[in-house]
Formats: sequence, structure tokens, C-alpha cells
Amino acid sequence: MSKLWSGRFATSGAALLDQFNASLPFDKKLYAEDIKGSIAHATMLAKQGILTEDEADQIAKGLLQIKQEIEEEKFVFDIAHEDIHMSVETRLIDLIGEAGKRLHTARSRNDQVAVDFRLYVQKENLVIVRALEEVIDVLMSIAKEHTNTLLPGMTHLQHAQPINLAFHLLAYVSMFKRDIERLESSYQRNNVLPLGCAALAGTPHNIDREYVAKLLGFDSVSVNCLDTVSDRDFALEILFNISTIMMHISRFAEELILWSSYEFKFITLSDEYSTGSSIMPQKKNPDVPELLRGKTGRVNGNLISLLTVLKGLPLAYNKDMQEDKEGVFDSVETVFMSLNILKEAVRTMTINVGRMKQACEVGHLSATDLADYLVQKCNIPFREAHFITGRAVAHAEGLGIDLSVMSVPELQKVDARIGEDVSEYLSLVHSMNARTSQGGTAVSSTCKQIEIFETWITSRH
Amino acid sequence: MSKLWSGRFATSGAALLDQFNASLPFDKKLYAEDIKGSIAHATMLAKQGILTEDEADQIAKGLLQIKQEIEEEKFVFDIAHEDIHMSVETRLIDLIGEAGKRLHTARSRNDQVAVDFRLYVQKENLVIVRALEEVIDVLMSIAKEHTNTLLPGMTHLQHAQPINLAFHLLAYVSMFKRDIERLESSYQRNNVLPLGCAALAGTPHNIDREYVAKLLGFDSVSVNCLDTVSDRDFALEILFNISTIMMHISRFAEELILWSSYEFKFITLSDEYSTGSSIMPQKKNPDVPELLRGKTGRVNGNLISLLTVLKGLPLAYNKDMQEDKEGVFDSVETVFMSLNILKEAVRTMTINVGRMKQACEVGHLSATDLADYLVQKCNIPFREAHFITGRAVAHAEGLGIDLSVMSVPELQKVDARIGEDVSEYLSLVHSMNARTSQGGTAVSSTCKQIEIFETWITSRH
Amino acid sequence: MSKLWSGRFATSGAALLDQFNASLPFDKKLYAEDIKGSIAHATMLAKQGILTEDEADQIAKGLLQIKQEIEEEKFVFDIAHEDIHMSVETRLIDLIGEAGKRLHTARSRNDQVAVDFRLYVQKENLVIVRALEEVIDVLMSIAKEHTNTLLPGMTHLQHAQPINLAFHLLAYVSMFKRDIERLESSYQRNNVLPLGCAALAGTPHNIDREYVAKLLGFDSVSVNCLDTVSDRDFALEILFNISTIMMHISRFAEELILWSSYEFKFITLSDEYSTGSSIMPQKKNPDVPELLRGKTGRVNGNLISLLTVLKGLPLAYNKDMQEDKEGVFDSVETVFMSLNILKEAVRTMTINVGRMKQACEVGHLSATDLADYLVQKCNIPFREAHFITGRAVAHAEGLGIDLSVMSVPELQKVDARIGEDVSEYLSLVHSMNARTSQGGTAVSSTCKQIEIFETWITSRH
Amino acid sequence: MSKLWSGRFATSGAALLDQFNASLPFDKKLYAEDIKGSIAHATMLAKQGILTEDEADQIAKGLLQIKQEIEEEKFVFDIAHEDIHMSVETRLIDLIGEAGKRLHTARSRNDQVAVDFRLYVQKENLVIVRALEEVIDVLMSIAKEHTNTLLPGMTHLQHAQPINLAFHLLAYVSMFKRDIERLESSYQRNNVLPLGCAALAGTPHNIDREYVAKLLGFDSVSVNCLDTVSDRDFALEILFNISTIMMHISRFAEELILWSSYEFKFITLSDEYSTGSSIMPQKKNPDVPELLRGKTGRVNGNLISLLTVLKGLPLAYNKDMQEDKEGVFDSVETVFMSLNILKEAVRTMTINVGRMKQACEVGHLSATDLADYLVQKCNIPFREAHFITGRAVAHAEGLGIDLSVMSVPELQKVDARIGEDVSEYLSLVHSMNARTSQGGTAVSSTCKQIEIFETWITSRH
Repeated sequence: MSKLWSGRFATSGAALLDQFNASLPFDKKLYAEDIKGSIAHATMLAKQGILTEDEADQIAKGLLQIKQEIEEEKFVFDIAHEDIHMSVETRLIDLIGEAGKRLHTARSRNDQVAVDFRLYVQKENLVIVRALEEVIDVLMSIAKEHTNTLLPGMTHLQHAQPINLAFHLLAYVSMFKRDIERLESSYQRNNVLPLGCAALAGTPHNIDREYVAKLLGFDSVSVNCLDTVSDRDFALEILFNISTIMMHISRFAEELILWSSYEFKFITLSDEYSTGSSIMPQKKNPDVPELLRGKTGRVNGNLISLLTVLKGLPLAYNKDMQEDKEGVFDSVETVFMSLNILKEAVRTMTINVGRMKQACEVGHLSATDLADYLVQKCNIPFREAHFITGRAVAHAEGLGIDLSVMSVPELQKVDARIGEDVSEYLSLVHSMNARTSQGGTAVSSTCKQIEIFETWITSRH
Repeated sequence: MSKLWSGRFATSGAALLDQFNASLPFDKKLYAEDIKGSIAHATMLAKQGILTEDEADQIAKGLLQIKQEIEEEKFVFDIAHEDIHMSVETRLIDLIGEAGKRLHTARSRNDQVAVDFRLYVQKENLVIVRALEEVIDVLMSIAKEHTNTLLPGMTHLQHAQPINLAFHLLAYVSMFKRDIERLESSYQRNNVLPLGCAALAGTPHNIDREYVAKLLGFDSVSVNCLDTVSDRDFALEILFNISTIMMHISRFAEELILWSSYEFKFITLSDEYSTGSSIMPQKKNPDVPELLRGKTGRVNGNLISLLTVLKGLPLAYNKDMQEDKEGVFDSVETVFMSLNILKEAVRTMTINVGRMKQACEVGHLSATDLADYLVQKCNIPFREAHFITGRAVAHAEGLGIDLSVMSVPELQKVDARIGEDVSEYLSLVHSMNARTSQGGTAVSSTCKQIEIFETWITSRH
Repeated sequence: MSKLWSGRFATSGAALLDQFNASLPFDKKLYAEDIKGSIAHATMLAKQGILTEDEADQIAKGLLQIKQEIEEEKFVFDIAHEDIHMSVETRLIDLIGEAGKRLHTARSRNDQVAVDFRLYVQKENLVIVRALEEVIDVLMSIAKEHTNTLLPGMTHLQHAQPINLAFHLLAYVSMFKRDIERLESSYQRNNVLPLGCAALAGTPHNIDREYVAKLLGFDSVSVNCLDTVSDRDFALEILFNISTIMMHISRFAEELILWSSYEFKFITLSDEYSTGSSIMPQKKNPDVPELLRGKTGRVNGNLISLLTVLKGLPLAYNKDMQEDKEGVFDSVETVFMSLNILKEAVRTMTINVGRMKQACEVGHLSATDLADYLVQKCNIPFREAHFITGRAVAHAEGLGIDLSVMSVPELQKVDARIGEDVSEYLSLVHSMNARTSQGGTAVSSTCKQIEIFETWITSRH
Repeated sequence: MSKLWSGRFATSGAALLDQFNASLPFDKKLYAEDIKGSIAHATMLAKQGILTEDEADQIAKGLLQIKQEIEEEKFVFDIAHEDIHMSVETRLIDLIGEAGKRLHTARSRNDQVAVDFRLYVQKENLVIVRALEEVIDVLMSIAKEHTNTLLPGMTHLQHAQPINLAFHLLAYVSMFKRDIERLESSYQRNNVLPLGCAALAGTPHNIDREYVAKLLGFDSVSVNCLDTVSDRDFALEILFNISTIMMHISRFAEELILWSSYEFKFITLSDEYSTGSSIMPQKKNPDVPELLRGKTGRVNGNLISLLTVLKGLPLAYNKDMQEDKEGVFDSVETVFMSLNILKEAVRTMTINVGRMKQACEVGHLSATDLADYLVQKCNIPFREAHFITGRAVAHAEGLGIDLSVMSVPELQKVDARIGEDVSEYLSLVHSMNARTSQGGTAVSSTCKQIEIFETWITSRH
């Protein structure tokens, strides 16, 4: 049996250990944050007289050169340096010598990694907000063109009441708006500088943390160092916020898949966002929304991973916390791509207005309206009205037609009190437009919602 | 084999179905919210002329009587009514007749359950905030008495630097403060009225949702009804916020368990919050912190459950969403009990100041201070200072003593440049007090932190 | 603000602690296992001369009386007894005095709870197997009647190739068969006695664990006591096995929901397993499959809970492990009810054979067959055949018909090499029956599968 | 604000889509399985006369060359080919032309990916079994040397009874043995060929699936094709099995961390498996066990991810299922590395026998033995014995000594009935050796356990 894994076991113990311990393969993603944080730290040290101005200048210059080397892919990453921090610092000492050795004064790996990671998460909060805004823009512009496009409103995947497509799309605008609010709330709550906490207990050096906070764009300085070096709440928050966004996306994706099926045919995805089959020439598969739906799994996994990692850790920093980054990177990449892909898939899809309308003519969508008519016009109590409507629906089924197109004489066979004016009530458009309450589907109400969202969008610029 | 489950399979299909479908066994917890929401709804209907004032009065009176019946355990719950809404409504019609039948005008089960559940979650947000405040109070009062109590600050569960107990406890104050901020942020973001959305598309009735919002204490009215009846973001938020709180508690619990062990003996839990063994008379087990740590599992499970339930649901309401409540109820109960128990366990524990101090004398906690001394007083570069310190530690080990109590002559054997003034630097108290940076462990710095938290607490009243 | 929670905070500390610590409210479910285990233990103690025969008799008699009291609901549970073990033991001593005090000889709460819980899980393994068998029976009998019922086989929710309904249902038989195999594998692997391990290290008493194993139906005795008292692998296994079953159920439920929609109408759920709407008289909602789908969330949550609880616990028993039971009880109840409900919902649904067949006529399901025809009969390479087929599909679309009913002359317009015999190939029934490979959808192949499953079922009796 | 993400948004839509859709970046890991499966498929096609022998030879030769190219890193992967299957097939057609185009006869991407992934999972099952065996070997050899090494057995992290180190390590052997059994059970249950199911419904070609199964080492052929192309139970099983292994590892890791602390000092990790601090020269951090503990999070995340992905998917293949691989790859890599690292960390650690013994002298570990003595030698009922023991423990505390070393006269002050022979009972070694029951900690019993495990190990060769 030995052959099976001989290759794998050939890796030497030491190499395995490097691979196991090192965070460099993933935390090199933080190079820009690491350099940004170090420049701010050095600038502050010089201001406080802990470094000379010249040393700080050399450090900044050296770090910017390293940044360029990395971006031009000239930088040689060596796993022996374990993490991005050591990789950069080692290269800095190569480049500028003595001054480089003084950069690490009054800080520790613990607060350095905390500031790098937080800078990254804060930046990505804003990036995801922007991606959400772009999806909202696309939804809003489609909505504006489809306030009169009838669509069967569903609950339990059953036809319920006629609504319009704009109203349906605005439901997703509402969700993504809440997602933006959650991200911005997290951004504000966590816009706090960790640097200057050193290993766990602060430093005897006369540092100025407020100044560093200002340089790095933080609103304030963390209050307790022991907490700061082991705090990963900000990472949990972005993971949760992303899980919620992806849950919303998965619901939309489910609808795009349903709507693309032969049975629904409400939309046709553009060729770019669907795929053919190598053996079935007639097929067009909604691969993109399926993947969007599937990616909910991984972001939930990432959330539960970090919650599990942090469970029961004594204070302060423990190496378990090195497991905090990969999941966040993965969730951030996933949601960013997903939002961009969703935006394009929706923007380029064809809306089959005719099929949507046609679907409204199935399922007696105006049944509620007949009941309302009986109550309001014939002064019949709701319970009785509900019963009469049931009989009318049965009569329509018998005739093989939808209630919305049943003639008045036929309706009068069900109940003689029904008047000529009933037809108007039963029309699908009337039914939709009757729901004028705040947040309702009437075109007037839908337009009011568009206005509310547009005001909100404008207020953000 | 048949005997094994014959009992189980004996349950009739219909009974099983009732049990499967009905939410009454758990959603009866929402009776007060259901009644509160219905009274507000009826009041509004009367104001709008949809009900008469007299009908609204009868409804309110009837509902308040039902509330009393439930609270006095005189109310008979019947699973045939499926949920709390039908249970209350049926009883109302029993009590007041015709007017009771008109209560459901212009609303649906979908927006009714949404408002009940949201009222509950909003209320519990505040309850948990209060419970967190009480834990913070206890931590603050212990902290104020222990700013001078030495404790080995640890990373990786290894002695690192001397800190004080107040500083350590303030780390948890910081965490619980963030937890409060998250709950309050969720409260504000979700303080939005769902009622009036009816089944999914609003209602043709001339309702006044702003007025209902005011009556129920909501800040605003939801914008889009389709979204509203299927929105459970507020439930996800409280589940996540609770998971984060319990994660923090689990870390504290881990420390209480460690500190209670024979090896640490930093604290002694009060008898009430620990348990004896029926066969080992000498034992005292930290059951309470162990359970606190264990309960992290269930709240994480509840979070992942709801995320899974909501994945891929098409709009709008689907019956899957009935699975939204039990997890939230369980997490809320769990965190509420946990915070209260934690508060008492911490309040009543004995702090073994001597053991904490003694532990500081192990592990050469002032090694960093010797290195700092060499840099600052002897003008030795940090790398060399670090190396000399390593030798001093080795020398101390050879002597079987801790670096903090090594004599000057012995230190001078390691490096002749070391002066008489070194002793002061190596003392544990000095070491702790040297870390005066913002957020550091020096007593002065710790007191400043206490002040910051007290100001914050005061500002909340 | 104080009023909000005053009720809640009124609970005295001691009462809260009882509530927090006690497992009685949920572990009383284990009363039968506890009594069964104790009788076996006492019988062994008597055989070994540690108890007298008379004492063992008194114990057995007393325990059986307690069992009856519990089952007749005459037993008074008192939370002060904390758990089911103490409740039973205390009552036993009440009933029989001195002998009752000797029951706990040579065992501890740790191995007692381990044996009770394992007996429960082992029993439920078999109960769930039986419930799966019953679902399989229903599926098999429907399958046998529908080997010729055409249905559009789908991938990506797009029509792909014609299959038959039996073939489709047998996919679920396959899944549930694997579920049974997993449960049985877990049963066998974990059919090991924990009792006799005492607190953690065994006992000085001369006990006979093999004998107890025999009495309780275990195949063997656990090897290492320290492991045994902290082993919850058997609980994780049933949680995972249930998650997999519920995942399978959720897929079936999704299809039942889709198939019940106006767009599909492949099936009609019986009235008992669907629900009407209080305001929309025309609606019939697939509540049951929706709940089945939703319940996936809770069982996944229970799995992740226990994995989280066990993470990082030092040996041996820790109180965190008290959190092991509620999730298992909940998952077991959930899957048991779900399987029973699924069985009935499927058994009583109406299959709309006509709609299924009609759906096959949409989407050019025999396109692959045309390509196959061109390859086999006209000796055209596959790539070219694929291309010609694409053109034929386009031509059919132009005519507004499905490829399966296109006339030969029209097909010959696309490619002159197409012969008269093509019609047969394009018929949906032929297309389905062509796939005769092992496991394929041809009726012959489907019948072979039915045979395989029937043989397997028979072999189990 | 735009600058922040301008770089990110610069990626063109098409490139993003490629990145989003393509599985090549991760599924290229399956190249060997893909080639193996294709060679078996071609061999069968030739045997059945569907390909010529010459074509099959060309295909095999071409594929082996591609394998070599990949392993020598000469193969150019192009994301335009989307996945490993297309990458290999395209290259094959480049190399051998026409025959290459015929390879895909009678199969589809759906069954191809299923067979590749299953071959991988089956192989890794065995690899992980082997890694577990190696850890067991190390534990066994340490255990054999430490059957007489006293260690405080703990529950609730409190000293409970004296055990020996071998006994403690055998608890982990027990766990890892169960892990092996689970993996092997999964291997057997899933050793079933998916190939030959084509897209979803089988194929009209006259293939021989049994023959392919034989060629690829599968025990049987899947029964129903629709199930087969959407079955990922085997992937869930390995994820769950790995989660359980990592949970066991996390418990061991927790103990290694505790045992490395200053407070315990039971072990010293070798320098290779611990790390120093850059600013605290005296520190030695247990990084390796901390990472081992932390990695529990990611494997649990991977499990929940796939369960979430599969929830509610209609039959058969859906693109969501492309999300099945990365998590499995990650969990497999994680557990493989973790086991290897654990093995080495344990093998190279120093066991501080003195400290372990010394710890036994704290906490009155032989209290249970005094009670047993009173029962057996003085004929005192257990309840009274327990009470007397409590007083003896209190007396010992008063004297500042451990019960195990209390003199007989002192003991007689507590109760005059205590005889001279009590000393022997109270000695720690006697206490440990008293627990001779099956699975107990007595050296004799421990040795018996070693024998059982050795027999099991031998039986596997």
C-alpha cells in the first residue's frame, strides 16, 4: 500500500513544518497595508524623537521601493521569512541597513498584524459597499423601465397576487441597502487603531498613538492593549456581513434559475452568462446564477471557521489566530466577484414581458379582489365574501378560464349581487394598482419607492 | 425488531402532521407582542374609519383580557390553532364576537408574524444590553480594587510580561462594550415597522402605517412590502451578535477554568458556582464556566441554522421561514442566562492575589526590561541587547532564580556595563509600570482606561 | 428602561443557576435507558458478589416501578435533583432504602451518562433506519407503476433528456439506501459498552464488563476508560448521518415544491399535506415540503454545535459535554418526523402524468438522439453531427415545434442524408429507451434497478 | 472614494467571468485521476468495439505523455479551457488528432468529474489512514515506556485520580483507531464506479461498466445514473471524518499547550516545534499545537460549506456542485499535515516525569482510596466513609500536606478505626494500581490495553 502516499510522505519534516507554520503564502496579500502601517509608525517615531528624521526618511523610501518591487513582481518571497512582516523588514534592512533595524522599536508582531489586517478589512468594507452600489444602480434602472410590467407575485412559489417587475426588483434593492448599512456600521465601529499595543501590554516608549491613527485614517485609538492584540471582532463582522449579502444573492440567483427554466421562461440570460452543453446542443444552462447560489456555502463556512477558532482562547494572542485571514480573504474575493457578476448577468438578461404577463393569467390572481369587491360594494361580511369567491374560482376552473377574464353573467351565476362594475376589479392591472398602501405594489406606490431609494443614493454622493 | 419503534410509529399521521406543521408550541412565547401589535393595528383602523371606535375598543379590551388569561395560565392552547396568531384571534372572536372578525382587515399572517418577531427581537436587544452592562459593572468594581494586583500577562499561555489584574479585566470590558455597540446598532438599523405589508404586496385599504409605527415605537416604516415579509436580517443580526458575545464569554470562561486549576490557583470559585463530586470528596469542579464555554456551540449552531434556512429561498414568504424562531429564542435565553451567571460567578469568586504575584516570579517576565535598560542606559543596539539578555536569562536559570530577583553582581558577570540602577528596572512592579503608553498596563495607564469606561457608562444614563 | 426586563431579572440567582446547570429538563428523555442500564449493572454486581441477590432484586423491582411511574406521569421531577440519574436514584432510595444506596457502587456519573446516551443513540439509529425503509417502500411502489411515465430529465433545471418517473424516484431510493448503510455502519462501530469505566480510570471493584455488555446488547467493551468517558463520536456520527438524510430530503422537497407550482404542475399534493390561505381563496401552498426543506438548517446547526463544544476539551469529562444531548434529541425527532411526513406526502400526492409527458415535448429533448442517429446511421463524425443537430433545432424553433415531432421532409431540408427511419429515433419514448446501459433510464434498465433494490430489501428481512 | 477600488474594478467583465466560472485553478489537482479514468474508459471502449485497439493505444500513450508533461511542469494550463478535463482533452487532440476526439464517446462531463473526484477521495482516505497509523505508532512506543509514569488524571481540569501516562496516551490511540475505522468504512461504502452514467440517464452505447470498475479498483458499479451524477455523499463523509479527527487533535493540542505552560511543565516541546519571541528572549511558544487546535475551525467550515451547497438542489447535476472540491482539498491537506506535524511534535517532546509525579501529590488524589479502605476494611457504609474522608482531607489541608503522605497517627485522629495498613492504600502508586477493571488505569490493565492495540495493529499488515 506504501506507494500510494510515498510521494506525499517524501516531503521532509522540516519542509512540512515550514508549510504548516508559515503564513507568508496568504498574508503577502497584506503587503500594502504592512508598508503603509510601517511608514506611519516610523513617521510617528521620528516626530517623538525616537528615530531621527533621516532614519524615518530612509525607512519610508526603502519601504516604497519594496512596494514597487512587489507590484512589479521583482520581490523574492522566501518562506523562511514566515510572514509578510518579516519578509518586508528583512528586505528593508538589506536595502537601508541600520535604520531598518530600528523600525520595529515600540511595536511587536502582535499589534503589527492587527493593524495590517484591520486596514485590509476596512478597505474591503468600502470596496464591497461600492460593488453593492453598482448592483443597485443596475436594478434601479431596470426597475424604472418596468413599473408597468405585470408579474405574478408569489408566496410558497405559488401565484398569489399580481405585482410589477419593478416592485419585485426593489425588494432586492432594499436588501442590498441594508447590506450597505451593515458594512458602514462595521466600518465606523471598528475604525480604531490597534498599533502601539506592542506584544500585549503597551510599551515604555513615549509614542503618540493618536498621531498614528490620524496618519492611517482611523477615528480613534484602542483603549486596552490586551484586548486589542486578541480582538478579531472586526473580522467576524465582515464575514457575517458577507454571509448575509451572499444569502440575499442566493435568493436572487434561485429566482434567476427558476425564471430561466422552460417552465417559467420569464427571462433569458445572455449567452455570456450561461453555458451550452457539449453533448446536448439544445441546452443553455444558467451556470452563473447556480454558482452564485452555491457560493453561499463557502462564505458560511468561513464565518463558522473563525467563530470556532476564537472559541475558548485565553488572552492574549495565541497562534490559533493565524487562522483568521484566509477565510476573510476568500469571503471578500467571493462576494466581490459575485456582486460584479450578478450585476452583469442582470444587466444583460432579456426580460420576457409577455411571459410574465401571461403567467399572471393563471392562478386566479384577482381572487382577493373579488372578495374585496363583495365586502366594499355589496356590503357582505369578509367571511361570506371569502366563501363566495371560493365558489367563483371553482366555477372559473370548471369553465377552464382564469377568474380575471370571467364574464359578468357567469359571475352573477355564482352570486346575483355581483354588479357590472366587477370586471374592472378583476382585471390584473386594476388588482395590482389597488394596493396603494405605503410599500405596496401599485404603480404609484412603486414609483414612490423608487423615489425614496433615489434620494438615498443621491444623499451618498 | 418491530417493538423498538412501535410506540413511536403509533402516533397517527394526522397528529404527526400537526406536530410538524404547528408553530404554537414555540411561538406562543410571542403572545405579548402579538397582542401589542394587534391593539396598535385596531387603533389605526379605527382612526382611519375602517373600524368604528367601539369595535377598536372591544378588540383592545378583549386582547388585554386574553393577555391576562395567558399570564395567569388560564388560557387553553390548542395545537389545532397552529400558531399564536390564530390562538389569540379565535379566542378574541369567542369573547367579543363580530368585531373580533374584523381585526384581520388589511393585514395578513405574513406581516403579522413579521411584526411580532421583530418586536420580540428589538426588546431582547435591549435586555441583553442591560445584562452586558451589569457584567461590566461587576468587572469595573473588581478592576478598581486591583489596579496594583500583579498578574503574569500571557501570550500563547506562556508568561510574557507582568500586568495587573485590572488591566486584564478591562480587556473583557472592552469586548462587552463592543458587544453593546453592535446590539444597539442592530436595534437602530432594524427599528422599522413591517406591519401593513399584508401578504406580500400591500393592501387596498387606506391604512396609516406611520401611525402604527409610532404606536409601536418604531422609527420608520419599511419601504418595500415584498422584501418586508421575507426579511429576517434582524434575526440573523441578533444571532450573530449573540455568537460574538458567547465567544467572548467562552474566552473568559476558559481563563476562569485555568485559574481554578491546582496548577494556577489564581482564583477560587465560590461554592455556589462550582460543584463537588459524588465519589471524590476532595474535588471542586468549575462546572459553571465549563457550561459557559460549552454554550458557544449551541449559539453558533443557531446562527448557521438560520443562514442555511434562508439560502436560496425565492421571494416572498416561504414556510421554511417558520424555522426562524426557535434558534433565536434559544440563543436569547442562552446569552441572557450566561451573562447573569457569569456576573455572579465573577462577583463571588475569591482572587488569590498572592498566587498571581508568585506566578509573576516565574518565567523571567522582566527580560524585555533588561533589554530596554541596555538600549536606553548603556546605548547598546537592540539586537545586541536582546542577545545579552538571553545570556542573563540562561545565567538566572543556572542559579535557579528568576531574572527579576537576580543581584547586580551576578548581572555584571553577564555584562560588565550593567550598572547598579538595573535592579529597579528588573522589579516586576517597575516593569509593569513602565508600560505607560495609551492602552498600556502601567497603573497610571490602567486608571486612565477605567476613567474612559466610566465616562462611557455615565454617558449612557 | 428598567421595566422592560424587570420581570426577567426578578428570577433569583439561585433559580437561574438551577436552570443553567440542570440537565433534567432534557435528559429525563433518557429515563428508560437509565433504568435499563442500572438493572444490568445491579445484576452484574450481584453475580460478582458485590451486591446480594436480594439487593439486586429489590433494585430491579424498584427501578421498574419508577419506570411505570414515569410512563404513567405519576413521577414528580424535581429540578433540585439536577439530572435524570439523581432523580431516579433518589426515588429508588425512597422506595427500597439501603439497597438503593448500593446501586452506585463501582460506577460514576461519567460512565452512567455515557451508557444512557449511547443506548439512546443506538436505539434511534435503528428507528431511523426503519423510517427510511418505509419511505423506500412507498417510493418503490410508485416507481413500479411509473416505469413508462415520461418525465423531462433535468440538469441545471433545464430539460436535458427524457427519462421516466420510476428512474427519477429510484435516485432517491439510492440516496436513502446509502443513508441506511451509514446508520448501520455507525451502529456497529459504536456498539461498545462504556459502563464500568467509573469516573475516568476504572474501578478497584471486581466487576464483569463483558457480562454487562451482553445484558445490554453491546458487542464489546470499551478498551480505555479515559477515552470512554469523554468519547462523543457516536453522537457526532448520528448528527452527521441525519444531516445527510435531511440534505437528501431537502432535494426531494425542492422538487416537490417546484412540481407543485403552476409552472410545472407535475404533481398535486393532497389537501392534507398542503395548506390554504386565509386571504387568497385560490391558493394551495406546499407547506409540508417547504418545512422539510427548511429543517435542513436546524440539523446542520446541531452538528456544528457539538463539533464546536468538543473542540479543544482536555481529557477527560468536562461539563461542557452536558451540551451534547439537546441537539441530538432535536435532530433525531426532526428526521423521524420528516421521514414520516415525507412518506405520507409522497404516498398521497397525485401524479399528473399528462403534464410530465407534455413537458417532455418542450426543449428538444431528443436532440442528442438526432446526433447519435447521424453518427451511427449516416457515419458522420460526432462534431459534424452535433453541428447539424444544432441547425435542426434552430429549424424546429423557426417552425415553432419540438424536434421530437418534426417531419422527415423538414429534417431532410436540414441535411439530405437523413433517412425515413429517423422518426423513430426522435420519438421521446425511443429516446428514453435507448439508454440501456447499466443504471440508465431505459425501461429495461429501470426495471433491472427495481430488481436490485428489491433484492436488497428482501435480504434485510 | 473611487481610487480605493479602481484597480480591482479594472478587471474586465470577461476576465472576471472566467475567474468566476473556471474550476481549472483548483481542479488541476485531479490531473492524475482524470488521466487514469480516461485510460480505463478508452480501454473498455476498445474491448467493446466502440474504439479500435489502435485508437485506445494512441489515447493511452497520449494521456501518459500529458501526465509526464504536467509532472515535469511543462504543461501549459490555460484558463480558457475552464477545467482539467477540457485541458487534458484539448492537449490530447493536439497530440494524437482524430482518436483523441473519440475519447469522450459514451461519457459526459458529469460522470467524468464524478469519477475523478471519487478516485481522489478514495485515495486520500487511505493516505489519511496511513498518517493516523503513524501517529498511533509514536503514541504506542511512548506509552510502552511510560506505563509506570504517574500523572494526575483530571476531569474538569481538576486533579481527580492518579493514572499513568501510558493510559492517558492510549485514550488518543482509541480515538485515532475509531477515526481509522470511520475512514475505512467510508472507503468501502463508496468504492463504487460512477463512470458510464453520462449526463444523467446513461448512454445508448454498449458499454461495460463492470469492466471499468475492475480496471479502476472499484468494487461495484453505481445502480442509478441520475443519483450518481449528483451524489456527493462520499465527499461529505471525508469532510466529516476529517472534522472528527481534527476535533481529537484539538483536544490533544489543548493538553500539549497546557502541559507546556509554566504552571504545568509536564512536557517541554522540542525547539523545532515551538517558537521564540522577537522581543521576549525568555519565551518559548507552543505555536505548533496552537495551530493544530486552530485548524479545527477550517475543517468544520469546509464541512458546513458543502452541506449548505447541496441543500435543496433539484436533480441532477447543478453548477453549484462545482463548489464541492476546494473544501475537500483543503481539509485533506490540513489533516494530512496536522497528523504529520503532531506525530513529530509528540515524538520529539521531553516528558518531565518528575513534574507529573509531583503534581499527583497535590489535590489529595487518593481520597477515593481512603473511602474505599473504610468500606472494605472497616465495614463502614459508603456514605459515612465519604464523610470521614472529607474530614481527613480537611485535616490534611490544615497540616498543609497531601492526603497521600499523611501519617497513620494523624489519620487515626480523624477516625480511630483506621488501621496501620491504610498507608499502602493511600500511596499514589497503589491508588493507580488498584483500578484493575477492564479498561482501567492499573499498570496491569494498561498493559492489557497496549496488547489489544498491538494485536489490532498487527492484524492490519
